[in-house]
Amino acid sequence: MLRARVEIKLKKGVVDPEGKNIEKALHLLDFTEVSGVSVSRFIEIIMDEEDKEKAARRVDEMCRKLLANPVINDYTIQVEDMHE
Amino acid sequence: MLRARVEIKLKKGVVDPEGKNIEKALHLLDFTEVSGVSVSRFIEIIMDEEDKEKAARRVDEMCRKLLANPVINDYTIQVEDMHE
Repeated sequence: MLRARVEIKLKKGVVDPEGKNIEKALHLLDFTEVSGVSVSRFIEIIMDEEDKEKAARRVDEMCRKLLANPVINDYTIQVEDMHE
Repeated sequence: MLRARVEIKLKKGVVDPEGKNIEKALHLLDFTEVSGVSVSRFIEIIMDEEDKEKAARRVDEMCRKLLANPVINDYTIQVEDMHE
Protein backbone atom coordinates (compact mmCIF):
# COMPACT_ATOMS: atom_id res chain seq x y z
CA MET A 1 0.00 0.00 0.00
CA LEU A 2 1.28 3.45 -0.95
CA ARG A 3 0.05 6.93 -0.22
CA ALA A 4 0.26 9.55 -2.96
CA ARG A 5 -0.04 13.19 -1.99
CA VAL A 6 -0.97 15.55 -4.80
CA GLU A 7 -0.88 19.32 -4.40
CA ILE A 8 -2.89 21.14 -7.03
CA LYS A 9 -2.34 24.87 -7.22
CA LEU A 10 -3.20 27.64 -9.63
CA LYS A 11 -0.53 28.51 -12.19
CA LYS A 12 1.35 31.75 -11.67
CA GLY A 13 -0.62 34.61 -13.15
CA VAL A 14 -4.00 32.90 -12.85
CA VAL A 15 -6.35 34.95 -10.68
CA ASP A 16 -7.15 33.30 -7.33
CA PRO A 17 -10.52 34.76 -6.28
CA GLU A 18 -10.81 32.51 -3.22
CA GLY A 19 -7.43 33.69 -1.96
CA LYS A 20 -8.33 37.34 -2.63
CA ASN A 21 -11.58 36.95 -0.69
CA ILE A 22 -9.84 35.34 2.28
CA GLU A 23 -7.31 38.18 2.27
CA LYS A 24 -10.09 40.78 2.29
CA ALA A 25 -11.90 38.98 5.11
CA LEU A 26 -8.68 38.77 7.17
CA HIS A 27 -8.15 42.51 6.74
CA LEU A 28 -11.71 43.17 7.92
CA LEU A 29 -10.92 41.06 11.00
CA ASP A 30 -7.89 43.32 11.68
CA PHE A 31 -5.22 40.91 10.50
CA THR A 32 -3.61 43.82 8.69
CA GLU A 33 -0.16 42.16 8.54
CA VAL A 34 -1.45 39.79 5.83
CA SER A 35 -0.18 40.84 2.41
CA GLY A 36 -1.16 37.86 0.26
CA VAL A 37 -3.20 34.66 0.38
CA SER A 38 -3.33 31.76 -2.04
CA VAL A 39 -5.35 28.58 -1.83
CA SER A 40 -4.54 25.16 -3.19
CA ARG A 41 -5.98 21.67 -2.89
CA PHE A 42 -4.32 18.66 -1.43
CA ILE A 43 -5.53 15.21 -2.50
CA GLU A 44 -4.34 12.10 -0.68
CA ILE A 45 -4.74 8.84 -2.57
CA ILE A 46 -4.28 5.42 -0.99
CA MET A 47 -3.24 2.83 -3.58
CA ASP A 48 -2.96 -0.96 -3.68
CA GLU A 49 0.43 -0.79 -5.33
CA GLU A 50 3.98 -1.49 -4.19
CA ASP A 51 6.07 0.12 -6.94
CA LYS A 52 6.54 3.83 -6.17
CA GLU A 53 7.57 4.79 -9.70
CA LYS A 54 4.58 3.04 -11.24
CA ALA A 55 2.32 4.66 -8.64
CA ALA A 56 3.69 8.12 -9.49
CA ARG A 57 3.06 7.52 -13.21
CA ARG A 58 -0.51 6.39 -12.49
CA VAL A 59 -1.20 9.42 -10.29
CA ASP A 60 0.18 11.68 -13.01
CA GLU A 61 -2.32 10.06 -15.39
CA MET A 62 -5.10 10.67 -12.82
CA CYS A 63 -4.12 14.34 -12.64
CA ARG A 64 -4.22 14.72 -16.40
CA LYS A 65 -7.53 12.86 -16.77
CA LEU A 66 -9.47 14.06 -13.74
CA LEU A 67 -7.83 15.87 -10.85
CA ALA A 68 -6.17 18.93 -12.41
CA ASN A 69 -7.13 21.36 -15.13
CA PRO A 70 -4.01 21.73 -17.29
CA VAL A 71 -5.05 25.19 -18.44
CA ILE A 72 -5.00 26.74 -14.96
CA ASN A 73 -3.35 24.22 -12.61
CA ASP A 74 0.14 23.08 -11.74
CA TYR A 75 0.51 19.97 -9.62
CA THR A 76 3.17 18.11 -7.67
CA ILE A 77 3.08 14.44 -6.72
CA GLN A 78 4.76 12.76 -3.75
CA VAL A 79 4.53 9.01 -3.17
CA GLU A 80 5.39 7.46 0.18
CA ASP A 81 4.89 4.22 2.09
CA MET A 82 1.76 4.07 4.23
CA HIS A 83 3.67 3.72 7.52
CA GLU A 84 5.70 6.93 7.02
CA MET B 1 8.21 38.77 5.51
CA LEU B 2 7.11 35.30 6.52
CA ARG B 3 5.10 32.66 4.75
CA ALA B 4 2.61 30.61 6.77
CA ARG B 5 1.32 27.38 5.32
CA VAL B 6 -1.92 26.09 6.80
CA GLU B 7 -3.30 22.64 6.00
CA ILE B 8 -6.97 22.29 6.83
CA LYS B 9 -8.33 18.77 6.77
CA LEU B 10 -11.47 17.03 7.90
CA LYS B 11 -11.35 15.45 11.35
CA LYS B 12 -11.14 11.67 11.50
CA GLY B 13 -14.63 10.20 11.26
CA VAL B 14 -16.11 13.17 9.40
CA VAL B 15 -17.52 12.07 6.04
CA ASP B 16 -15.55 13.41 3.05
CA PRO B 17 -18.04 13.47 0.15
CA GLU B 18 -15.59 15.15 -2.23
CA GLY B 19 -13.01 12.44 -1.61
CA LYS B 20 -15.63 9.71 -2.07
CA ASN B 21 -16.73 11.22 -5.37
CA ILE B 22 -13.17 11.47 -6.67
CA GLU B 23 -12.61 7.83 -5.67
CA LYS B 24 -15.73 6.74 -7.58
CA ALA B 25 -14.71 8.75 -10.63
CA LEU B 26 -11.19 7.24 -10.56
CA HIS B 27 -12.70 3.74 -10.43
CA LEU B 28 -14.88 4.57 -13.43
CA LEU B 29 -11.72 5.66 -15.26
CA ASP B 30 -10.18 2.22 -14.49
CA PHE B 31 -7.84 3.35 -11.73
CA THR B 32 -8.96 0.30 -9.76
CA GLU B 33 -5.84 0.28 -7.52
CA VAL B 34 -7.20 3.33 -5.66
CA SER B 35 -8.60 2.32 -2.28
CA GLY B 36 -9.16 5.68 -0.63
CA VAL B 37 -9.14 9.41 -1.38
CA SER B 38 -9.27 12.37 0.95
CA VAL B 39 -9.19 16.05 0.14
CA SER B 40 -7.84 18.93 2.18
CA ARG B 41 -7.15 22.62 1.65
CA PHE B 42 -3.88 24.35 1.75
CA ILE B 43 -3.78 28.08 2.47
CA GLU B 44 -0.57 30.06 2.03
CA ILE B 45 -0.45 33.39 3.84
CA ILE B 46 2.25 36.01 3.26
CA MET B 47 2.73 38.19 6.33
CA ASP B 48 4.54 41.46 7.09
CA GLU B 49 5.98 40.04 10.28
CA GLU B 50 9.45 38.93 11.36
CA ASP B 51 8.73 36.97 14.56
CA LYS B 52 7.86 33.36 13.66
CA GLU B 53 6.25 32.56 17.02
CA LYS B 54 4.05 35.62 16.90
CA ALA B 55 3.13 34.83 13.29
CA ALA B 56 2.13 31.27 14.25
CA ARG B 57 -0.08 32.61 17.06
CA ARG B 58 -1.74 35.09 14.68
CA VAL B 59 -2.36 32.39 12.08
CA ASP B 60 -3.86 30.17 14.76
CA GLU B 61 -6.23 33.03 15.59
CA MET B 62 -7.09 33.37 11.86
CA CYS B 63 -7.90 29.65 11.73
CA ARG B 64 -10.19 29.89 14.74
CA LYS B 65 -11.93 33.04 13.50
CA LEU B 66 -12.20 32.40 9.77
CA LEU B 67 -10.26 29.67 8.02
CA ALA B 68 -11.26 26.45 9.79
CA ASN B 69 -14.50 25.10 11.19
CA PRO B 70 -13.59 23.70 14.63
CA VAL B 71 -16.50 21.24 14.53
CA ILE B 72 -15.24 19.37 11.48
CA ASN B 73 -11.68 20.55 10.77
CA ASP B 74 -8.21 19.90 12.10
CA TYR B 75 -5.42 22.19 10.99
CA THR B 76 -1.64 22.39 11.07
CA ILE B 77 0.42 25.56 10.74
CA GLN B 78 3.98 25.90 9.44
CA VAL B 79 5.78 29.23 9.35
CA GLU B 80 8.89 29.77 7.26
CA ASP B 81 11.00 32.60 5.87
CA MET B 82 9.99 33.80 2.43
CA HIS B 83 13.30 32.80 0.80
CA GLU B 84 13.07 29.13 1.89
